[in-house]
Amino acid sequence: MSTLRPTLEFLLYDWLHAESLTERERFADHSRETFGAVMDICERIAREKYAPFNRLVDTEEPRFDGERVILPRATHEAHAAYVGSGMLGAAQDYELGGMQLPYTIEAAAGTFFATASVSIGGGLLTIGNANLLMAHGTPLQREVFARNEFSGRFSGTMCLSEPQAGSSLSDIATRALPDGPDFEADPLGPRYRLRGNKMWISAGEHELAENIVHLVLAKIPGPDGKPVPGTRGISLFVVPKKLVDTEGRLTGERNDIALAGLNHKLGWRGTTNTLLNFGEGSFPVRGGAGAIGYLVGRPGEGLRCMFHMMNEARIGIGMAATSLGLAGYQASLEYAKNRPQGRPVGPAGKDPAQPQVRIIEHADVKRMLLAQKSYCEGALALLLYCARLVDEQHTGTPEAADEARLLLEVLTPVAKSWPSEFCLEANSLAIQVHGGYGYTRDFPVEQYWRDNRLNMIHEGTHGIQAADLLGRKVVMEGGKGLALLAARINATIERAIQQPQLAEHANALGQALQKVGAATKAAWATANAAEALANAVPYMQAFGHLVIAWTWLDVLLALPAQVERPAEEGRVRAARYFFHYELPRIPAWLRVVETRDPTCATMPEDAF
Amino acid sequence: MSTLRPTLEFLLYDWLHAESLTERERFADHSRETFGAVMDICERIAREKYAPFNRLVDTEEPRFDGERVILPRATHEAHAAYVGSGMLGAAQDYELGGMQLPYTIEAAAGTFFATASVSIGGGLLTIGNANLLMAHGTPLQREVFARNEFSGRFSGTMCLSEPQAGSSLSDIATRALPDGPDFEADPLGPRYRLRGNKMWISAGEHELAENIVHLVLAKIPGPDGKPVPGTRGISLFVVPKKLVDTEGRLTGERNDIALAGLNHKLGWRGTTNTLLNFGEGSFPVRGGAGAIGYLVGRPGEGLRCMFHMMNEARIGIGMAATSLGLAGYQASLEYAKNRPQGRPVGPAGKDPAQPQVRIIEHADVKRMLLAQKSYCEGALALLLYCARLVDEQHTGTPEAADEARLLLEVLTPVAKSWPSEFCLEANSLAIQVHGGYGYTRDFPVEQYWRDNRLNMIHEGTHGIQAADLLGRKVVMEGGKGLALLAARINATIERAIQQPQLAEHANALGQALQKVGAATKAAWATANAAEALANAVPYMQAFGHLVIAWTWLDVLLALPAQVERPAEEGRVRAARYFFHYELPRIPAWLRVVETRDPTCATMPEDAF
Repeated sequence: MSTLRPTLEFLLYDWLHAESLTERERFADHSRETFGAVMDICERIAREKYAPFNRLVDTEEPRFDGERVILPRATHEAHAAYVGSGMLGAAQDYELGGMQLPYTIEAAAGTFFATASVSIGGGLLTIGNANLLMAHGTPLQREVFARNEFSGRFSGTMCLSEPQAGSSLSDIATRALPDGPDFEADPLGPRYRLRGNKMWISAGEHELAENIVHLVLAKIPGPDGKPVPGTRGISLFVVPKKLVDTEGRLTGERNDIALAGLNHKLGWRGTTNTLLNFGEGSFPVRGGAGAIGYLVGRPGEGLRCMFHMMNEARIGIGMAATSLGLAGYQASLEYAKNRPQGRPVGPAGKDPAQPQVRIIEHADVKRMLLAQKSYCEGALALLLYCARLVDEQHTGTPEAADEARLLLEVLTPVAKSWPSEFCLEANSLAIQVHGGYGYTRDFPVEQYWRDNRLNMIHEGTHGIQAADLLGRKVVMEGGKGLALLAARINATIERAIQQPQLAEHANALGQALQKVGAATKAAWATANAAEALANAVPYMQAFGHLVIAWTWLDVLLALPAQVERPAEEGRVRAARYFFHYELPRIPAWLRVVETRDPTCATMPEDAF
Repeated sequence: MSTLRPTLEFLLYDWLHAESLTERERFADHSRETFGAVMDICERIAREKYAPFNRLVDTEEPRFDGERVILPRATHEAHAAYVGSGMLGAAQDYELGGMQLPYTIEAAAGTFFATASVSIGGGLLTIGNANLLMAHGTPLQREVFARNEFSGRFSGTMCLSEPQAGSSLSDIATRALPDGPDFEADPLGPRYRLRGNKMWISAGEHELAENIVHLVLAKIPGPDGKPVPGTRGISLFVVPKKLVDTEGRLTGERNDIALAGLNHKLGWRGTTNTLLNFGEGSFPVRGGAGAIGYLVGRPGEGLRCMFHMMNEARIGIGMAATSLGLAGYQASLEYAKNRPQGRPVGPAGKDPAQPQVRIIEHADVKRMLLAQKSYCEGALALLLYCARLVDEQHTGTPEAADEARLLLEVLTPVAKSWPSEFCLEANSLAIQVHGGYGYTRDFPVEQYWRDNRLNMIHEGTHGIQAADLLGRKVVMEGGKGLALLAARINATIERAIQQPQLAEHANALGQALQKVGAATKAAWATANAAEALANAVPYMQAFGHLVIAWTWLDVLLALPAQVERPAEEGRVRAARYFFHYELPRIPAWLRVVETRDPTCATMPEDAF
């Protein structure tokens, strides 16, 4: 039996006191019971409609028959059940048909789907898309597009990357030209014609919903007719696959968006990933050239608007990575409990006439299981903490909201990158526990590992996250975010140090915090960004380990001083694993940061 | 252009002085030119017959049509070209049709095939199988089986594991019963009837050769009719797929070996991997029940015989892992040199009107490339060093041969495990350099990563290697092997410390050696194997890093004091990367070894 539900409940209620959110006006109708009902529904749908088809969606990859993208029937049924659960709009206002559910609970419930089949997927993109429109769209854009996304009638995408511009958005070449002299008069927003190619668009083409709402970054040419260079030239457009009227009804006309190709991936195959051509003339529409798109927000502010959905999207990726890690942990735990092989080390194991023991009795198998538990449950705790901060940002007092915002700025790169790296490592350990069987497609763990490899790449690669963390987040607003995080960590240390059984961890965490702080200063000592950021990834790895160690120590504070139940003992052990086996890795990462080691940065190209 | 050939030549000649082997009688006809000719042939075959089909053999997995296992035509052609190269018997005596090639050169040449397509494969198993028969078989077994393997007429397998006995060979259940009263009179060796199932048998069924020679571990029942428990009950048998006469001709009769299933793997799909049923009655032969097998060596000594092929097999696995790492390094280097994306950090990169730079100009991409180079070329150097020790063991003076044997005992677990772990990490970095493209099947790196994941599992898992290293190899013969390795490392340190540019590395290596030595003692301080081995894998990781750092420092001693050429600068940088970014990881691994940390070993099962 999966330990996911009790782990979530412990973290949500014993640690994060999520039920205290119901004291706030927005969540006043909720209670631990209503939260539980949401979790029940999601858990059931995931068990019945997702988990049984995870391998199927891997082997029956999306294909294009020339007209339509074909997905397995199981994907349609899972999607329908997901829509039926109401989760797409769960966080929205009652008047929009939502249930004003805290994001913390939404994020927690999402793990059921992601552990069952990450690539059938939940509503991450659709929700993010619609949330962005709620924040930056006109009232009619919200009504026509967002509302229909929350109801599941339409689905959503983010169209940022282009074949020649992956991480470098300032180099996008998609252009948007005003559509006729009356372009500003369109009730759906200033109407443009878009032409360009968008790469890596997840869920960019399918038949799961009536329509697909693309949010597209493009450049409006300046007065000289040329696109404005850099990111300040980027604007945001809502570009529906099928045109709609002001009531959100399909007009029957298709927009000029053509599927140029499906990407054939290493994993995550249940989700289509596409190259889309906008306005190339495959579906000429209303006599003009280009796909019709409506401006969202003001011209030149596209990236700022898009970043609105970035924090939640990045937490979502971290949650996907964590869920895959947890799925592998459960699978390998189950295997280890049932597979007999070998005998104990030492005298007890010398008699070959004795039966073999189950592999969970071997120290090295326990090590591989405990590492997984420590990585994945630690990551889960951090992500729920971040989700709780999102709720604080939206519903807390002004001071608390601003603190939450700042903490999220600093923690988001970690919440996205750390699980991507270490829950992937957990999946590799899950394979290793299975031995040769883990390397076959008869067991689920190899797929988890393949699926998880995506998470270090999409929504900003590891390198991008690291540059964001060290180059921006820890120095922004005079280092206020980092100082705030340090204060939270110190508060945890001060509580823990008073408990004899936690004092050792508290001291170790204090030293790690001091080291990371010193390394941050040393990296920037010359105020030269190229030198500071030359080792940004090792910095992020050390920073991430600090944050997860802090998370674990804080989680331990929610346990009784005398642990008695096995689950409590498990958390104590997982934390101890992290403090004994993982936290000591920090100095090795920081060494090159502190010295601004130039070994890599100055490597001559011809010496490779 | 691949840098593999010049790297190999540098390591073989400038560092290992491989041409000095030609001063020995066995290799007297050889010269650097004849070695070069062998390398030329292998490089050409790999380029023409292997590399173009690496993706094909991944997508056209082996399948069984009810009678035969079908492999792509390209595999047949690659195999034929490989056989034609003479590499199968290259190391053998002239009188056996060999060319008395040093193993060092054979191993080096093998990297061309493994980088081009690891799963089309070379002759690892066939050569190992035949070498075992040369060492332990009767003259007729050598003539009938080994000789035909060296010529490529027959191919070979190792049949150790069973579904219920993977790593635990003492639990195999395959039985061998004497075949009739005259069983000892068969000219091919004492004749038995075998019944049982063998799992994970690579190349267990195919049509690439006229016959398949299985070397099978099985138990001969004791006087009480029961199999002898433990490993001392294990005997070794040669079991041909098709029966042969004393001239090695096929008799036309098929032996009772049935393909029970093909394993469907995560990678390495160009090689069939099988479950074989011996003697289940699918092909009843000569009226008896069971597959016919001929005893090799003496009853009960099967495992000892089998271990004869283990060292070379494990070096072979390390070489495969390393080759995959090198292939990913080359692919990502090529990509990074050609992919424009983004701009430099700092003022130079602020102008979006400037064109994008190639990603190899970014510090973090350089870091990922240099890490790959450091891992993979370091591993390559170690493996060639081990191969050189194999030659020393076979052709050196008695003292040198014994030293080589001892060093190989200690180094083999590292040579197998370290590349399996860190060249896999290199492959992950190769994906990361490619960004989203690396996650698609349009680029080769995802396949390298999948293929490489096998190497931590087969030929003894990571856990098995670690228990072997810490439980046996560093303590055997009173710690003589470890002392010898330490003496070699100290000799390198003493030479390096005299060169100002190497002194820092030499000091760091000295400290690491001291730490590993102390941890070895501390692990065994209570003389309790269960305590000592509870953290055997972290110990092996630290030990491996020590060995690779030593290898790199020793390699640097082969460079001129003033490096001038780019390739030389590259080696200096790769070594420096290892000393600055990797060696400092050792204390974190050893901490739990020194304290015999029981966090994992004593974890209660119900706390997971």
